[in-house]
Amino acid sequence: MMKLEEIIAGIKPLEQEWIQKAQGRTARLVMPTRALGRLHEISERLCGIQQTLQPNVDHKAILVMAGDHGVVAEGVSAYPQEVTPAMVQTFLVGGAGINAIARQVGADVWVVDMGIIPELDATGLKGAERLVVEKIGNGTASFARGPAMSRQDAERTLQVGFEQASRRVENGAEILGTGDMGIGNTTPSAAIGAVISGASLDEMVGRGTGVDDAGLARKRDIVRRGIEVNTPQPEDGLDVLAKVGGFEIGGIAGTILAAAFHRRAVVVDGFISTAGALVARALCPTVKDYLFAGHCSEEAGHRIMLKHLGLEPILDLGMRLGEGTGAALAMGVMDSAVRMFKEVLTFQEAGVADK
Amino acid sequence: MMKLEEIIAGIKPLEQEWIQKAQGRTARLVMPTRALGRLHEISERLCGIQQTLQPNVDHKAILVMAGDHGVVAEGVSAYPQEVTPAMVQTFLVGGAGINAIARQVGADVWVVDMGIIPELDATGLKGAERLVVEKIGNGTASFARGPAMSRQDAERTLQVGFEQASRRVENGAEILGTGDMGIGNTTPSAAIGAVISGASLDEMVGRGTGVDDAGLARKRDIVRRGIEVNTPQPEDGLDVLAKVGGFEIGGIAGTILAAAFHRRAVVVDGFISTAGALVARALCPTVKDYLFAGHCSEEAGHRIMLKHLGLEPILDLGMRLGEGTGAALAMGVMDSAVRMFKEVLTFQEAGVADK
Repeated sequence: MMKLEEIIAGIKPLEQEWIQKAQGRTARLVMPTRALGRLHEISERLCGIQQTLQPNVDHKAILVMAGDHGVVAEGVSAYPQEVTPAMVQTFLVGGAGINAIARQVGADVWVVDMGIIPELDATGLKGAERLVVEKIGNGTASFARGPAMSRQDAERTLQVGFEQASRRVENGAEILGTGDMGIGNTTPSAAIGAVISGASLDEMVGRGTGVDDAGLARKRDIVRRGIEVNTPQPEDGLDVLAKVGGFEIGGIAGTILAAAFHRRAVVVDGFISTAGALVARALCPTVKDYLFAGHCSEEAGHRIMLKHLGLEPILDLGMRLGEGTGAALAMGVMDSAVRMFKEVLTFQEAGVADK
Repeated sequence: MMKLEEIIAGIKPLEQEWIQKAQGRTARLVMPTRALGRLHEISERLCGIQQTLQPNVDHKAILVMAGDHGVVAEGVSAYPQEVTPAMVQTFLVGGAGINAIARQVGADVWVVDMGIIPELDATGLKGAERLVVEKIGNGTASFARGPAMSRQDAERTLQVGFEQASRRVENGAEILGTGDMGIGNTTPSAAIGAVISGASLDEMVGRGTGVDDAGLARKRDIVRRGIEVNTPQPEDGLDVLAKVGGFEIGGIAGTILAAAFHRRAVVVDGFISTAGALVARALCPTVKDYLFAGHCSEEAGHRIMLKHLGLEPILDLGMRLGEGTGAALAMGVMDSAVRMFKEVLTFQEAGVADK
């Protein structure tokens, strides 16, 4: 398994030269100057990432990282913890939201058990081959009372995420998407968001899957306590991940590191995935070159996280499902951007007079 | 050809009962309550429109309405008028932006010559069978000096648009998209927008395909003069269309009337298409039940038009190309909404515990 320092050392900024070449092509397309707005920025950045004027995002892989959270015992979630493995099974049989959108955009969905509580027996389950079990533990410890995991385990989540995502790239994935499953995981994500962005808990802690007012107050209180007890250091991504994070959040951060390492675009989903992106960026600021924000979630604080990362979301549809759904949906738009870039004729080819 | 009054009389509101049934299904899907935000609203409205819990938008047709504008002689556009037929040819050979996105989302593109200046000889051109020539005239008159067209001609544009769109529905289209081509057509669209929404010309007149500051001032002046000379009556959609509209804008309004008449959803594109929607809604307020705003254009005033119509755009990507590109892109998101609605398992089917 590659060491974290080696991974980070292997991540290089994208090629501005290719972006400029791509802008040159955009300027020749038979349309008013940059009339496709954000779509141009997307296709040009993909050219920079892939070092080509023929970018390709046909082969898409979404890694749904799953984990359980000790902090659920403090009463921070609207759903029982048994939902985590039940949803993992639903992903495998293809019955969840992420599966429906992935089928549409032509993305493969892989589920990595980074540390859910039960030992899931997927034998005989349709889709069992899409489950990778790489448990770091059977759920984290409650970060309200101490660190969620050890620093060693936090590093391991990054390495596992890196390894799993690298495998997808080695098998041909041209673009990666991040997804998550883990009852309670908006709580560590809010903690990460508050610590790294410096935003207040009032802004950062939201209702997640739907806690009531009392639940929301309790959740804020737990996050506040977790930060006080653990004193995570914002500039040390590994410290934040270990103290107030989660196994699947580390897996997401590892996926992002892998994308940047292999020069692939990575589309982050919503609140939990973006917490993973905050950890990855704290570890290696250059990952930003490879990051795309799929959408802006309804979850309080996501917009602040995105702003902190300097990312403009592709979609803003009031979604707050997770699983990678916002990332998958945005991949469809990125497909459009690439098609526009490659398929639209130039003024000259079309025989149309330019300004 | 059906009379306008008959068309309007045939348009009925959508079925609230089916929307309620659809909301019932949404509530049972294996996800937190309404976690897909706007996607739920889209799928539920499609259920109401199609009167089913199995909505279908697989068969998509985009009608690109083309026309020329006498007002171009006043110097309101950054591009020469020859670009209109040249772009129509580009649509037919499949080399424009709308073609690239339509291929991706699986939409058929039809081009209707509602009144471009030249007689286009498409014989032998690949895709010639996708061009329908239904010229109302060879370009409109300049509305800076009098009405753009007669009231009779305006009615005819609506009827032609209605007929062409009805043909697509009869051939199986389950959802329609509107597109436009016509050098200078942001000028009549701004006039329509200002007259019907009551917004100021400073807000409503924008740079179109890219006029400079002097061009923008001239364009505002021309629109002001056109409104003063013609005194179009905001509550009379036909009067507005005739006096300060365009042939293709009437075709778009006719397409919208046809969608509502046949109980099909219709996705409007940007500034020009939404001007057509303003005309259609002035003629028949019930069309709103069938309208979806594909995106919010960068063109000044589009957001005001959408607000006046009470429509929330699906996408907001800084696009301002027209052709139907924003509508086609949004159709991909509507596909996702339908897939989510039909393919995601219920809590019971998935064996997952609800709250």
